[in-house]
Amino acid sequence: MSTAEDLEAMAKRRGFFWPAGQIYSPVAGFWNYGPLGARVFNALIDAWRKWWIYDEDAYEIVTTNILPEIVWEASGHKEGFNDKQTMCVKCHMRWRADHLLEEKLKIKGLEGKSPEELTELIRKNNIKCPECGGKLSDVFVFNLMFKINVGPTGETPCYLRPETTQSSVIDFPFVYRSQRAKLPTKIAQIGRSFRNEISPRQTLIRMREFSMAELQIFFNPENDKYEKFAEIANDKINLLSAEARLSGKETAVEITVSEAIKKGLIPNELIGYYLSKVQKFFIFLGFEKKHLRFKELLDDEKAHYSKRHWDFEVYTDDFGWVECVNNAWRTDYDLSRHEKYSKQKLSVFEDNKHILPHLYEPSFGLDRIFLHLMLHAWRNDGKRTWLALKPMLAPYHVAVFPLVKKDGLDKVAEDVYNKLKVKFKAFYDASDSIGRRYARVDEIGVPFSITIDYDTKSDGSVTIRDRDTTKQVRIKISEIENYLEKHIS
Amino acid sequence: MSTAEDLEAMAKRRGFFWPAGQIYSPVAGFWNYGPLGARVFNALIDAWRKWWIYDEDAYEIVTTNILPEIVWEASGHKEGFNDKQTMCVKCHMRWRADHLLEEKLKIKGLEGKSPEELTELIRKNNIKCPECGGKLSDVFVFNLMFKINVGPTGETPCYLRPETTQSSVIDFPFVYRSQRAKLPTKIAQIGRSFRNEISPRQTLIRMREFSMAELQIFFNPENDKYEKFAEIANDKINLLSAEARLSGKETAVEITVSEAIKKGLIPNELIGYYLSKVQKFFIFLGFEKKHLRFKELLDDEKAHYSKRHWDFEVYTDDFGWVECVNNAWRTDYDLSRHEKYSKQKLSVFEDNKHILPHLYEPSFGLDRIFLHLMLHAWRNDGKRTWLALKPMLAPYHVAVFPLVKKDGLDKVAEDVYNKLKVKFKAFYDASDSIGRRYARVDEIGVPFSITIDYDTKSDGSVTIRDRDTTKQVRIKISEIENYLEKHIS
Repeated sequence: MSTAEDLEAMAKRRGFFWPAGQIYSPVAGFWNYGPLGARVFNALIDAWRKWWIYDEDAYEIVTTNILPEIVWEASGHKEGFNDKQTMCVKCHMRWRADHLLEEKLKIKGLEGKSPEELTELIRKNNIKCPECGGKLSDVFVFNLMFKINVGPTGETPCYLRPETTQSSVIDFPFVYRSQRAKLPTKIAQIGRSFRNEISPRQTLIRMREFSMAELQIFFNPENDKYEKFAEIANDKINLLSAEARLSGKETAVEITVSEAIKKGLIPNELIGYYLSKVQKFFIFLGFEKKHLRFKELLDDEKAHYSKRHWDFEVYTDDFGWVECVNNAWRTDYDLSRHEKYSKQKLSVFEDNKHILPHLYEPSFGLDRIFLHLMLHAWRNDGKRTWLALKPMLAPYHVAVFPLVKKDGLDKVAEDVYNKLKVKFKAFYDASDSIGRRYARVDEIGVPFSITIDYDTKSDGSVTIRDRDTTKQVRIKISEIENYLEKHIS
Repeated sequence: MSTAEDLEAMAKRRGFFWPAGQIYSPVAGFWNYGPLGARVFNALIDAWRKWWIYDEDAYEIVTTNILPEIVWEASGHKEGFNDKQTMCVKCHMRWRADHLLEEKLKIKGLEGKSPEELTELIRKNNIKCPECGGKLSDVFVFNLMFKINVGPTGETPCYLRPETTQSSVIDFPFVYRSQRAKLPTKIAQIGRSFRNEISPRQTLIRMREFSMAELQIFFNPENDKYEKFAEIANDKINLLSAEARLSGKETAVEITVSEAIKKGLIPNELIGYYLSKVQKFFIFLGFEKKHLRFKELLDDEKAHYSKRHWDFEVYTDDFGWVECVNNAWRTDYDLSRHEKYSKQKLSVFEDNKHILPHLYEPSFGLDRIFLHLMLHAWRNDGKRTWLALKPMLAPYHVAVFPLVKKDGLDKVAEDVYNKLKVKFKAFYDASDSIGRRYARVDEIGVPFSITIDYDTKSDGSVTIRDRDTTKQVRIKISEIENYLEKHIS
């Protein structure tokens, strides 16, 4: 079994994630977080909020999943948010044409090809339906948004949002005015998005309902300086630029942000600052730098709204490089389209000028990040399995065990647990042998286990065991809190 | 203007809440929280999590909004989650028949009447279309769930959930097993629900997309004791029982939980415990007891799944008594229906017996609670307007102002602000007169304002002003943190 398969089996058994509605035949692409997964997921959101809302002085807003059709006409999603599909004329199975061709022809980069180009490739290579061998139709476009009919007669066509961005864009003028803001104005959202993917797969990677955390930065395009730039000018990022890709390169190079700007690989200080911060955030979460890179998209790979776009990718042996954060310079595309469709002025007045701000957006796929955190934390040395999550992200910070359930050890252990649970995510377990209890908490990533034994009764000391090394030290009960505070951050 | 209208105008202007998509014609029933509202909303969720997840040792899960049709067939929502509507045969406007009749006939309690009974009332009283005077159709049922077609040809009919409960029910066996749980097993969810209301109204009260926080408690129906009952046995709750309502009473009486159980007004200790805790939570949030009551529903008012049901209502002059928490004893209805539809065993094995647990559920409407918090916090004494939110729930804990933007006062104020913002939700403002700045933060409920003036430079003291009394005291800069910690909890 691959790590991903091992992890999926463990996740279902221990309660990290599982298919939604699994007592029935679950519908592909819908996953729930069980109790342990929800704890990690919430800790990830807390960390994101700290880095991307509080530290950024960003304005968080909470918005609806359903928005009226006109929003998606203006945003271009109604027209352009499509898959290119082909259907078997015999068995009626549908396929994403670019994926099917990439697999059959063992090539890459067909995502941006037109339906006509893809049809031609199907014909030229005589590609048949993988399911039944039937003939495939010409390639057609299929919109990925879920339609909702709102109102008693469905008179108000709406869509579930395929991205959270649009709410930040259309609420931008109200946020700006109500908060007496100045450019750059930062709006943050944490919420769901929905896409009618034809072939959801790889558990939490390609889902039909998923969670995003996004920062929308509205800035003055005439100002290419950014106040916090000096802090990160010499930070090195792993960059695979569009320029390099066009010249045939496939691996990223390490380059300082200021050098990348000098070479035109990054257009301005603001974007440089946020690219650097994305990489820093992932290192803070526990990823190694060698598993991280920015891949700039080529013209035919980019979404309709972006002028320049960097996929921030994380590497695993199981899935290769997977995009976990979209970093898109959307220019004034969204605001100007909504100006046109709403007939409202969406510009702001600063420095004696009307400015239609540009939008730059790092957009985090929370479920993908969650899955990659788990994959990279997975450890198996042949003797035991453990999840080396950073203590801050672990489902529990600490487990408390009485060595045995008698002679008052359980009473002492319960007292210790009840005190710890006020400050820490604590877990109590008194059943089975101590070895099995260690194994159980190792598997779910609990970084510290405290055992109350007979010495505890005589000298008030306990053992505290480290998940990663299995080493134990003896400390006083009164020292536990300090010990944990020092090691969890 | 009523308080509700004043509040709505302030909420839009200052960024608490506003209609989703308001640069277009917004669709009724969809609202966003702006930056200040999101802060209060998140603080409310934090408080809820503390009370209903951490203190309860409940298992939080994170689940999808979209679930397949069979879940809603099993739950009874496909068949029974309906409005009774009538349509004007002339102008085709639709009306909720019970609401229309209640308004026209100035009576109450028609929600549970059958379509036939409502049609008869329309005919007997010769009710016409309020819009155009046209004839009204016979009353028919209209399902309130939003349908979603999932998959490339829409081959998998799904629905947006009208309640979060069902995910807890169908995930119950997996939570129970994966967490090695025992009854009572508590599962918590915070998430969205969706209902195609015919006439959304009263801003955040009747919405089409709304936020719920729910605790599902699965318990052994043969055990009518609850371990924590003694803690609350003598707590008094405001109860308007079904029995009292049937005998014509319309006001609640204060009664201890144990007495209510003795009289059969509350069926068991577990339900008594949680009813009491709901009322306690609202008092903790800042509501006065006289504005709170439990109203037990009569047989024809209850949802199809509940054996006994208490609406927990909050009173305002604007809206009267409004249900903010549903407290439903759903018995084993949901689990047994899903057993039947999924053909899976959903019972657990405890004490040498197979037990199909009962479900009891307090289900909190977060948006309604948010709105009622704001309404009850609204103050206007003719001279000024302020929002007397509990400091813990305020959008900012503290504002920092330099008296003037010169002589280095702004520099000192910025230093104070930057230190405070690490621990507190702090806000900085240096523009306009100090009086206008106080007025602005009063209006949004900031409980404390710190002003740096010329004395600060000589003796390191600042003024700290109380939002509710406008009284100011002078304290040292070094004392600010302690002062705030003492007053915010």
